Amino acid sequence: MIILGIDPGIAIVGFAVVQKDGRRLKPLQYGTLTTKPDLTTPARLRQIYRGMTTLLSEYKPDVLAIEKLFFNRNVTTAFTVGQARGVMLLAAEEAGVPVVEYTPLQVKQAVVGYGVAEKRQVQEMVKMLLGLSERPKPDDAADALAVAICHAHSVQLEGQLLRKGLRG
Amino acid sequence: MIILGIDPGIAIVGFAVVQKDGRRLKPLQYGTLTTKPDLTTPARLRQIYRGMTTLLSEYKPDVLAIEKLFFNRNVTTAFTVGQARGVMLLAAEEAGVPVVEYTPLQVKQAVVGYGVAEKRQVQEMVKMLLGLSERPKPDDAADALAVAICHAHSVQLEGQLLRKGLRG
Repeated sequence: MIILGIDPGIAIVGFAVVQKDGRRLKPLQYGTLTTKPDLTTPARLRQIYRGMTTLLSEYKPDVLAIEKLFFNRNVTTAFTVGQARGVMLLAAEEAGVPVVEYTPLQVKQAVVGYGVAEKRQVQEMVKMLLGLSERPKPDDAADALAVAICHAHSVQLEGQLLRKGLRG
Repeated sequence: MIILGIDPGIAIVGFAVVQKDGRRLKPLQYGTLTTKPDLTTPARLRQIYRGMTTLLSEYKPDVLAIEKLFFNRNVTTAFTVGQARGVMLLAAEEAGVPVVEYTPLQVKQAVVGYGVAEKRQVQEMVKMLLGLSERPKPDDAADALAVAICHAHSVQLEGQLLRKGLRG
């Protein structure tokens, strides 16, 4: 299973392509898509849409795992990130890739084991779980890797529950 | 000049195509694009994107005039409308159509002459300015017509100021 993890934004979109073979997780690619603030918003949205389309067609992920907005943020941020997120969901839909969403709390719990973890702790765990030689950079790419891992663990857990006959 | 006015939303998008010949305004088409709540958000966003693309290619507007979000609304609304608005701006950009934004206050001032007008007053003025036989329905389409009129007036005013040498 190939998971595309996304940390949404308008200036910087973190992305991570993670392959899950049984319990083993392998990062195929991670990084950021960036847009310049001197462009119009529609032009920035198009860049993000095209970047997403390229990632989707290049890696053919089975699923797009994306961070849910943290609703304690202010309304302007919600709106701006919302616009960017809209074109990302559209790109996934056009590519026929299902979207799953995780809150920052779920991501931290899945990666570190508890929800109040510091950014640095999350990054250390991401490094360990993926066998990286150093903590992933920049933060947005690290966040995208964490979302992808969160989805991988959630699928793993779902599978265990199914095998034990506790679900479905 | 052909203006595509838009009142953004995820369940209902109001649209209005208005032709401006000098001071004369002629409504070519208005109505709504709707999406069903039982669809996934990505699927709804795709419907909106495709609806917008169809309108843009059918009417070839010179400009897309869209309502700016009213930031007193709650953060969930901002986020949801933001996602829908993102794919609308993308559709405009892909069609090479520039986007202008107006606040609800600007729209009311342009249409009625003051910013605290009631919805019904706005609709009565829209009816009069466009020579309609009755108040436009539903509300979302009426709002889209109002945004289009707002842009037409703004262009008109800009032209007058230019002729008087007060601008540019």
